[in-house]
Amino acid sequence: MTKDNVQGAGEEEQQAQSKKALKKQQKEAEKAAKKAEQQIWVRARIHTSRAKGKQCFLVLRHQQFTVQALLAVGDRASKQMVKFAANLTKESIIDVEAVVKKVEQKIESCSQQDVELHVERIFVISQSEARLPLQLEDAVRPEGEGDEEGRATVNQDTRLDNRVIDLRTTTSQAIFRLQSGVCQLFRDTLINKGFVEIQTPKIISAASEGGANVFTVSYFKTSAYLAQSPQLYKQMCICADFDKVFCVGPVFRAEDSNTHRHLTEFVGLDIEMAFNYHYHEVIDSITDTMVQIFKGLRDRFQTEIQMVNKQYPSEPFKFLEPTLRLEYKEAVAMLKAAGVEMGDEEDLSTPNEKLLGRLVKDKYDTDFYVLDKYPLAVRPFYTMPDPNNPKYSNSYDMFMRGEEILSGAQRVHDAQLLTERAMHHGIDLEKIKAYIDSFRYGAPPHAGGGIGLERVTMLYLGLHNVRQTSMFPRDPKRLTP
Amino acid sequence: MTKDNVQGAGEEEQQAQSKKALKKQQKEAEKAAKKAEQQIWVRARIHTSRAKGKQCFLVLRHQQFTVQALLAVGDRASKQMVKFAANLTKESIIDVEAVVKKVEQKIESCSQQDVELHVERIFVISQSEARLPLQLEDAVRPEGEGDEEGRATVNQDTRLDNRVIDLRTTTSQAIFRLQSGVCQLFRDTLINKGFVEIQTPKIISAASEGGANVFTVSYFKTSAYLAQSPQLYKQMCICADFDKVFCVGPVFRAEDSNTHRHLTEFVGLDIEMAFNYHYHEVIDSITDTMVQIFKGLRDRFQTEIQMVNKQYPSEPFKFLEPTLRLEYKEAVAMLKAAGVEMGDEEDLSTPNEKLLGRLVKDKYDTDFYVLDKYPLAVRPFYTMPDPNNPKYSNSYDMFMRGEEILSGAQRVHDAQLLTERAMHHGIDLEKIKAYIDSFRYGAPPHAGGGIGLERVTMLYLGLHNVRQTSMFPRDPKRLTP
Repeated sequence: MTKDNVQGAGEEEQQAQSKKALKKQQKEAEKAAKKAEQQIWVRARIHTSRAKGKQCFLVLRHQQFTVQALLAVGDRASKQMVKFAANLTKESIIDVEAVVKKVEQKIESCSQQDVELHVERIFVISQSEARLPLQLEDAVRPEGEGDEEGRATVNQDTRLDNRVIDLRTTTSQAIFRLQSGVCQLFRDTLINKGFVEIQTPKIISAASEGGANVFTVSYFKTSAYLAQSPQLYKQMCICADFDKVFCVGPVFRAEDSNTHRHLTEFVGLDIEMAFNYHYHEVIDSITDTMVQIFKGLRDRFQTEIQMVNKQYPSEPFKFLEPTLRLEYKEAVAMLKAAGVEMGDEEDLSTPNEKLLGRLVKDKYDTDFYVLDKYPLAVRPFYTMPDPNNPKYSNSYDMFMRGEEILSGAQRVHDAQLLTERAMHHGIDLEKIKAYIDSFRYGAPPHAGGGIGLERVTMLYLGLHNVRQTSMFPRDPKRLTP
Repeated sequence: MTKDNVQGAGEEEQQAQSKKALKKQQKEAEKAAKKAEQQIWVRARIHTSRAKGKQCFLVLRHQQFTVQALLAVGDRASKQMVKFAANLTKESIIDVEAVVKKVEQKIESCSQQDVELHVERIFVISQSEARLPLQLEDAVRPEGEGDEEGRATVNQDTRLDNRVIDLRTTTSQAIFRLQSGVCQLFRDTLINKGFVEIQTPKIISAASEGGANVFTVSYFKTSAYLAQSPQLYKQMCICADFDKVFCVGPVFRAEDSNTHRHLTEFVGLDIEMAFNYHYHEVIDSITDTMVQIFKGLRDRFQTEIQMVNKQYPSEPFKFLEPTLRLEYKEAVAMLKAAGVEMGDEEDLSTPNEKLLGRLVKDKYDTDFYVLDKYPLAVRPFYTMPDPNNPKYSNSYDMFMRGEEILSGAQRVHDAQLLTERAMHHGIDLEKIKAYIDSFRYGAPPHAGGGIGLERVTMLYLGLHNVRQTSMFPRDPKRLTP
């Protein structure tokens, strides 16, 4: 007898690959049926426990799968054993030896509906404390539901304070399995396009953009900073002929922003690429990568999307092929037509970004688009000016459901022009000397951008707080767990 | 006419996939031959330039590929143009319009040996400064070679100070393309085994092992630390039912160690896994992952391995299937038999590790092995004691060419035992309260380990300094570039 897990399939398989979710479910049911009358051994948590006279009903859980288990005083179990089982605490991990029995009536409350387990032996692997800081059934309840019965939902701080339990919910399991998929799809797509993965340092000696919003680190007898982006290093790799590079890693922002979409530490999916004719080659590579991610999620993570939707309903994510690209000017015109008062070279406020997202969705039916050619004045010094109009620049943002997920640009690759632009911005040249010097020995035209992983996951799933898509979020008020 | 790159193939393809390196080279030659008499346009760097009367010979370079280009006063080029070309600085990036010509005699000094380019037009894309801080031909010269002619090699600090040029050498290009492959093989293997990728925070509120060797960060009005490993977070994911997780990310060590194998920031390839019967299930998963990496490198990166070997000769990396696993006791016995004086429960010194590597290689013909069952006294407090012998523990290191690349163990998953072990080690319980509390709500038996990416690349290639396999290394004396 080998050991099974709760879903009745012991094979090593990725539970996430589920275009064929329904087919798989059916297969599982067939497997379960085949197992009827078999003796199996499973390891699982006690999800719920209910004693009733001489019987004890347990619901056993492994990840998102649940099965009913029954102990009854009689041949298989003694009175003492039933009592022992009834006293086991929720969330304890147990090994159970049991016979699989088909049931007449589907067990609606479990994921395994056609069978139950008649328990013969129980071993406690790890006992949970009796008092849980939060209840899993409360943690997956959709907002508003159960209010009349006075049932609780769990607030965000309680969840995050007790993340090790909150991450056990079907919703959390689904969110982070899907996020693992985002990373995988991002990298696989780029590797197929000939990109090379690089690793860039996070401890840096100089804050590249003048020193605002940067965390300071004590470094032996001196001090250093945490990198706000891998941009300089990506660009050095381009100057070193790697041509197309990407990296996935933490990015640190010492901004005292307490919003639904800001973290002080997040995961950056970063791209940098030399181009031949026009920086739109780079935009096209990035948008195609995003489209491959959206398609991959849609095709492989339908089960996870549905699980999240049960608690947090949202519209399916829409995108076009090729991706819609609007110029900043057009966006300003659309906003003005909708009654917004703003200057042509003014940056977009967060509410205007959101409004623009709705206008674009109404007009073009897409949740993903690129805004190109930002005013030069609102972009960093290293942004390449538009050669045809010095008020604008070869820079772009990308949006999902009306929120920014990527900021990028063609970079100035000429040391002389870069020096001029830095001086125009009043930046101390001494502090960015190493950066400027990187371009003195031949540098190809190049562009790139940085994507926020947690925002992509949040917006793809239609969630409303980036803390839901960061396992252990960091913000100005939270450093634990 | 579309634009080609130097190697004569404009397709988007990953240059690294080269089991079929020879076949590909031949194909390239055929392609090049086909292109004879064709007019093409290439972008490349000027690798070398030599004027000779009315002619100018350029060697153009793109990544590891080089081709000869000729300008001659006549129909195609004016005297002024030839003079202009002759004055272009090395490492400048140019666009060249040229006719491809077959040559009678192979051009031994270039990677494209069967053709040369007869240049018609040149555009300067980005001019390099005339004085280079290091010469590429010096930077790829094997140590010792050229000493008699008084030719220079480039020392490590000069390389690292001018990394943007040093990374252009064939050796650097090969090292970091192969390293990108290590990451990809690591992840692909684990995803196939059903692992989930996680992202763990690098800014943490408490130094988990008592606060030694940890960098301090100012965090708004308080202070925080940089994570020395993702271990606590990996373990929390196991306690949250993810079962098998991995992560790839920076790890920070504030050790004032100035050795060939220590960095203050390196990339950790981390694994954590719940097991059913025995922690050897986890060892087997890790060793199989390493074997998949070794095979993938051998099969797909032969070109890169050979390029590195040209400058740094080494024996091919040897491994066994299944991986050799020795117990610590056996290793001590082997060392003692070789004349080493050491106690049974004493930790291995670096020279003894090296010696043991040679003894194991002689006896078992492998460069990779596991050392299992370390003395409990030399391992951290969270290490599970050996249930059969309290002097030993369920912990292991893995070695490549006699140097440690992974340290791992079964972890104590019981809050009570963990508290006892921490007290035994004299650790302030208050500081690790959050860690211990993670195990109070049911925790499965689990084990894991952390691999140093730069060490794997270094040792696989038989290199001798971890700074060669970190693009922008950080050590107590180096924070730039």
